[in-house]
Amino acid sequence: MSLVKVQNFSISLDGFGTGEPQSFESPFGHAGHQLHQWMFATRYFQGLRGEPGGTGGVDDAFARQFPVGIGAEIMGANKFGPPGWQDDADWRGWWGEDPPFHTPTFVLTHRSRPPMEMDGGTTFHFLQASPAEALEVAREAAGGLDVRIGGGVTVLRDFLAAGLVDLMHLVVVPVLLGRGVRLWDGLEGIESDYDIELAASPNGVTHLTFTRSTA
Amino acid sequence: MSLVKVQNFSISLDGFGTGEPQSFESPFGHAGHQLHQWMFATRYFQGLRGEPGGTGGVDDAFARQFPVGIGAEIMGANKFGPPGWQDDADWRGWWGEDPPFHTPTFVLTHRSRPPMEMDGGTTFHFLQASPAEALEVAREAAGGLDVRIGGGVTVLRDFLAAGLVDLMHLVVVPVLLGRGVRLWDGLEGIESDYDIELAASPNGVTHLTFTRSTA
Repeated sequence: MSLVKVQNFSISLDGFGTGEPQSFESPFGHAGHQLHQWMFATRYFQGLRGEPGGTGGVDDAFARQFPVGIGAEIMGANKFGPPGWQDDADWRGWWGEDPPFHTPTFVLTHRSRPPMEMDGGTTFHFLQASPAEALEVAREAAGGLDVRIGGGVTVLRDFLAAGLVDLMHLVVVPVLLGRGVRLWDGLEGIESDYDIELAASPNGVTHLTFTRSTA
Repeated sequence: MSLVKVQNFSISLDGFGTGEPQSFESPFGHAGHQLHQWMFATRYFQGLRGEPGGTGGVDDAFARQFPVGIGAEIMGANKFGPPGWQDDADWRGWWGEDPPFHTPTFVLTHRSRPPMEMDGGTTFHFLQASPAEALEVAREAAGGLDVRIGGGVTVLRDFLAAGLVDLMHLVVVPVLLGRGVRLWDGLEGIESDYDIELAASPNGVTHLTFTRSTA
């Protein structure tokens, strides 16, 4: 059965998934790289960069799940580019010509543009759709594999509020951002749909998994 | 050296230390007892009630630190009673004639009333004071022992913002309250003053300790 998954999604102790303001120079605003340092430090990510070493425990085990069984990704406009990218016909995402998705990737935006075929199997599709509609399209494209909700924060919150997420892996990083975009707003009580597990990593982050009781 | 401590202070995954609205019937509003269940379940608390059994691991180890080395407590008006208690001359706190503090206990409130001597060593003192002023008074009363900041949420946030907390033990409970009083508002960056450790309990909560680097 094709599941809807969230993977390696990092938030601050006070619940922000990104800082502010977002710009070309600072995709995560004042948060900088603080939320993702744990991930860059893993053997998995070091390996992707051709570097030796890295952390090899629970952080690495989670990081390595990123591509496994994923057939499509859905992301929001704010993940694809800085404010205003829709006005830049040459913008092709933050990731260069070989983005790390390697699947059809659906970008939710109010302005349509033609699909963008990148190297390595990633094709960006641009669509205006509700979470449920986007999921239907992505599922079709995933060919029986799982669909990743890649964020940003607002998109993840919308999918959670719509009850569409089956498995969610969050990473709580012990920093207090104070401002930015908060994941948890308006999600009162959703924990009752999930089994929740926590694992503290010796590197200082906490892994939180939400598993839908019926998944 | 006398330290300022926070102990067994529970917050939801979305950072609320209490729900809403507070009333005589519901001291924690719609949160009910969800935030403190982990504590009631420990051998320590079961023992205080004369009951056998309870959890015996990391939750219990933290719970047992509650009275150790504490010479005074500071609490806010909302911890002492429901809205309007200041108008009720007979209100003596939520805890009956033998409250669990067993030390001088300073209640921050704009309305003064005479000290209230309870059984078991607790005396409630009522004062209008800034965090720093209240701490000076409480420290004097603590006779060289530590001072506990007992909450509620707003008082703890005020003491954190004033940089007055040396050791803080928080317990993150995996529920999403969605509304209530949020601990973290306005505390951007305070983690840089602390060493932070996390320990996930098999009972589903996460213990977070903040240790001031200079303490």
